[in-house]
Amino acid sequence: MYKAPVEEIAFTLKHVAGLTPALDGGHLGDLTDDLVDAILSEAGRFATEEVAPLAAIGDTQGARFVDGTVSMPDGWPALYRAWAEGGWNSLTASPDFGGQGLPHMLHVAALEMWNSGSMAFAIGPTLTIGAIEALTAHGSDHLKSTYLPKMVSGEWMGSMNLTEPHAGSDLGVMKTRAERRDDGTYRLFGQKIFITYGEHDFTDNIVHLVLARLPDAPAGTRGISLFLVPKFLVNDDGSLGSRNDAHCHSIEHKLGIHGSPTCTMIYGDGRFGDAPGAIGWLIGEENRGLACMFTMMNNARLAVGMQGVAIAEAATQKAIAYAKERTQGKAPGRQGSGMSPIIEHPDVARMLLTMKVLTQGARAITYACAHAVDLSHGDDAKHWADRASLLTPIAKSFATDAGVDVSSLGVQVHGGMGFIEETGAARLYRDARIAPIYEGTNGIQAIDLVTRKLPLSDGNHIRGFIAELREIAAKARAANTPELGETGARLEASIADLEAATEWLLATLAEGKQAEALAGATPYQRLFGLVLTGAYLAKGALADGGDGRNGERAVLCRFAAENVIGETVALKDRVMSGAASLAAARAVLG
Amino acid sequence: MYKAPVEEIAFTLKHVAGLTPALDGGHLGDLTDDLVDAILSEAGRFATEEVAPLAAIGDTQGARFVDGTVSMPDGWPALYRAWAEGGWNSLTASPDFGGQGLPHMLHVAALEMWNSGSMAFAIGPTLTIGAIEALTAHGSDHLKSTYLPKMVSGEWMGSMNLTEPHAGSDLGVMKTRAERRDDGTYRLFGQKIFITYGEHDFTDNIVHLVLARLPDAPAGTRGISLFLVPKFLVNDDGSLGSRNDAHCHSIEHKLGIHGSPTCTMIYGDGRFGDAPGAIGWLIGEENRGLACMFTMMNNARLAVGMQGVAIAEAATQKAIAYAKERTQGKAPGRQGSGMSPIIEHPDVARMLLTMKVLTQGARAITYACAHAVDLSHGDDAKHWADRASLLTPIAKSFATDAGVDVSSLGVQVHGGMGFIEETGAARLYRDARIAPIYEGTNGIQAIDLVTRKLPLSDGNHIRGFIAELREIAAKARAANTPELGETGARLEASIADLEAATEWLLATLAEGKQAEALAGATPYQRLFGLVLTGAYLAKGALADGGDGRNGERAVLCRFAAENVIGETVALKDRVMSGAASLAAARAVLG
Repeated sequence: MYKAPVEEIAFTLKHVAGLTPALDGGHLGDLTDDLVDAILSEAGRFATEEVAPLAAIGDTQGARFVDGTVSMPDGWPALYRAWAEGGWNSLTASPDFGGQGLPHMLHVAALEMWNSGSMAFAIGPTLTIGAIEALTAHGSDHLKSTYLPKMVSGEWMGSMNLTEPHAGSDLGVMKTRAERRDDGTYRLFGQKIFITYGEHDFTDNIVHLVLARLPDAPAGTRGISLFLVPKFLVNDDGSLGSRNDAHCHSIEHKLGIHGSPTCTMIYGDGRFGDAPGAIGWLIGEENRGLACMFTMMNNARLAVGMQGVAIAEAATQKAIAYAKERTQGKAPGRQGSGMSPIIEHPDVARMLLTMKVLTQGARAITYACAHAVDLSHGDDAKHWADRASLLTPIAKSFATDAGVDVSSLGVQVHGGMGFIEETGAARLYRDARIAPIYEGTNGIQAIDLVTRKLPLSDGNHIRGFIAELREIAAKARAANTPELGETGARLEASIADLEAATEWLLATLAEGKQAEALAGATPYQRLFGLVLTGAYLAKGALADGGDGRNGERAVLCRFAAENVIGETVALKDRVMSGAASLAAARAVLG
Repeated sequence: MYKAPVEEIAFTLKHVAGLTPALDGGHLGDLTDDLVDAILSEAGRFATEEVAPLAAIGDTQGARFVDGTVSMPDGWPALYRAWAEGGWNSLTASPDFGGQGLPHMLHVAALEMWNSGSMAFAIGPTLTIGAIEALTAHGSDHLKSTYLPKMVSGEWMGSMNLTEPHAGSDLGVMKTRAERRDDGTYRLFGQKIFITYGEHDFTDNIVHLVLARLPDAPAGTRGISLFLVPKFLVNDDGSLGSRNDAHCHSIEHKLGIHGSPTCTMIYGDGRFGDAPGAIGWLIGEENRGLACMFTMMNNARLAVGMQGVAIAEAATQKAIAYAKERTQGKAPGRQGSGMSPIIEHPDVARMLLTMKVLTQGARAITYACAHAVDLSHGDDAKHWADRASLLTPIAKSFATDAGVDVSSLGVQVHGGMGFIEETGAARLYRDARIAPIYEGTNGIQAIDLVTRKLPLSDGNHIRGFIAELREIAAKARAANTPELGETGARLEASIADLEAATEWLLATLAEGKQAEALAGATPYQRLFGLVLTGAYLAKGALADGGDGRNGERAVLCRFAAENVIGETVALKDRVMSGAASLAAARAVLG
């Protein structure tokens, strides 16, 4: 059973991702170290004791669709209420609407733990928090005062409606339309698919944020507007009014996250209300809907990255526990009779250590990204906004790939038992698989990284970042402890790979060779993630955590340097020399 | 929908794996090229038209356990009968018992296609064929004449009973016991788990091959005997007699291959018969059961490798079809209005080409292994037996890892649709995951490869093999066509990595440093598979297939050389320098 790794999370936040320097520098208001510890500890307790025990039933029972409504798994509505009553929905929300205004870092740390407990459960609240962010940033005062207090308290949940059958990665072609009404409202007509928590029985009302197109809107992504469409209209006194013309048509039968209802939503077919048309209110300006969405989409991407970390952590804990208990064969050097715990077999240890490295690397990257988000409103806003922008696609893709890879290794460590559903390792493997896909596939992230993020500040932001990584490697080399082995030299070599690939991409983009640059986007993204894994593990190993675990961190860091990150050399090569053979071979695909 | 790639399979058999030279050299009896084509074509037709259409119902309905019996999915019993009536069960079986005595190569090629159609279906017949092999090699004349004709005709199926709750990878600790009876029979008592097709309604009788321990047996693997235990006893006239005291207690709820019943079998609890004890007949000699099993276990490992190839092929076909049809966004260089088919996006093309390379590499390795099995009974038996021994763990592990990796990429190419079960990509991803586990985990294969296979013929067999690979690389370099790009040089570099890692392992083993060698076993196995992938793709590209597709093969080979196999350098490094940091980091695991 999962146990929230509160100490490891706190260490990573404070000593790797930058929380302690930010606290010391007074950049995070009146937040204190003690408060951080208290919040993490309680979020961890909730994840361990309340969420995790209900994960299995959520998977086996799943969300059930009956006559237009969705019944959530047994025990989940009560779990949601307990979660909302615990104040977890309001962590980062504005105090103006009942929120606690805490840094994003704390939110993502808590998010990791809840997702480890049950990704299918945590995804719902995550999307509500995204809706709160979008509404806070772009909603009118009337919309904010009407909806935000109840969304922040958790009394109502939200949903994000972007995808349509023909508009997934490419939202520009969406067809859902909105018509203006004289009273300033709009009527929406259309179908949305893959709407997470579009319908459920957690709350009385659901506040749908819906992208749609006005009749006179420009084509493409510049003609999309964002609307708030509540399931039930809200009376002036805040009570629920009549049902809006929006409903869930069906839910999907999915590989994983069975407890999360994935809805097809119908807007404006006349099923409810006097005349067809779902009543909606504009959020932000007309035709600027995608920009409004992007405010929260970056955080949503980071939140999905956290799901990768979360699954990886849960899978690693489970595999280590099994490998200590299960005995088979004799490991090299085993004396006496009896079988060895399989953890003593070098190959099993290699799997487990690789799982640990990928998990901790992904955690550090995502937390560092959240930290950049937090500081992007302060003194050095441009620098930190660039950093957050640069790290977001890496956090999303590297962590979600880690979720898949680590959960697959987790199944493998369990042997035949891993393939049996009751063991639970297979559920993590199934749940993990959506994360590289939704909120922008990892391929989309790679395009974003290469074409939009590398050129930030004329390429100087990333150059500065690489210089920071070089400092870490130099410190590791200078430390030169036996525990760190060849960490310094290995890390320097991988950073050199990153630097070479980066400069090649910047030059290639500058020459207008888009196809060549994009051919290497995914290998580059992976390369970046591996380098950051090595660097952040080294940063942690070199920090003084004050917990006597620096030796452990150092040997794990060495394992990462000498056994995990070495393929940066092949990835660099793929970025810089792979495009021609990729272009030539496309003929094979017909 | 899957379409058997008969031409590609025939090409690989003939021009890469060695079938044509063996036919030309008269090493395969009176088999002709035309007969090969006819068999492949008909096996492909059966897989495409009969098996594949029933895969989805097998998955959604699954095998159902009711009151001690197993109902197979709708349509599957008829499918099995059609398969058996087609003579497919008897392809490689001895003509003495109704078989066709054809080479193993043809069997594995057909196996690939049936597994692409439905892995859950194909695994049952595969195990029966394994049981036929073991019985043919080690059974008494009486057992053979009683059981083999009906097993070869497919009237009865077989099952293989090895695993027990505490004896998986380590069979030496198994507890099922066998008692001698005065009439020469034995009585078996015990429980077996994970017994594939241990119970079903395909056939009237099931012939269980069961490993058990005699009361006076030595401890460990040298005290295990093999028994034939039929579900129904067989009368002298060949008709079915009374029910034996063996039954299925339950079936597992698994991640994948739902149509395949995975049974817990109970032997000798008195549920059937006059007195407790399942009646069994010894196969081979007492206490030599594991050796008897190993006869067929190597072929079973290769058969599981074929499942990896099969899933990879099916996933690749599915993903390519979807990527041609689905449009999103504009690929670089796209002119005019409208969206591009996603196959035109470089990142999607990279995924698809990687899938193709891994599939074809895995196919070539497994077929080459089957070819070595075929020739291991001929003129140069020792050489080919060594080759088959060497290739078996690589074929099993590389191909099954390819099944997992390729089916995961297949889900990714489908985007959100990939996560929806009805699409079918998720089923392949679920089915694939067992293959790296059963018939010896891939970690066990790596141990076998390093500790038993590298030292064959004092290390000279592998050295000779590497020399053969060098010849292929030299030819690629000499050909120097634009299509092949840097294939020659890249392949030579990867072969050098393999050679260095091999010599290091041989030296390390010779020094008795078992733990150090085993620490690198999995990276070494992967390294070997990647080198073989590059080499076999080059061999195919350099061959004259006479089908005008050499240009296509060359550009795919170049893609493999320049975009897939490059991590051999990191893998070599892990083998040769990774053990110390692995040993040091184990402390982290507690």
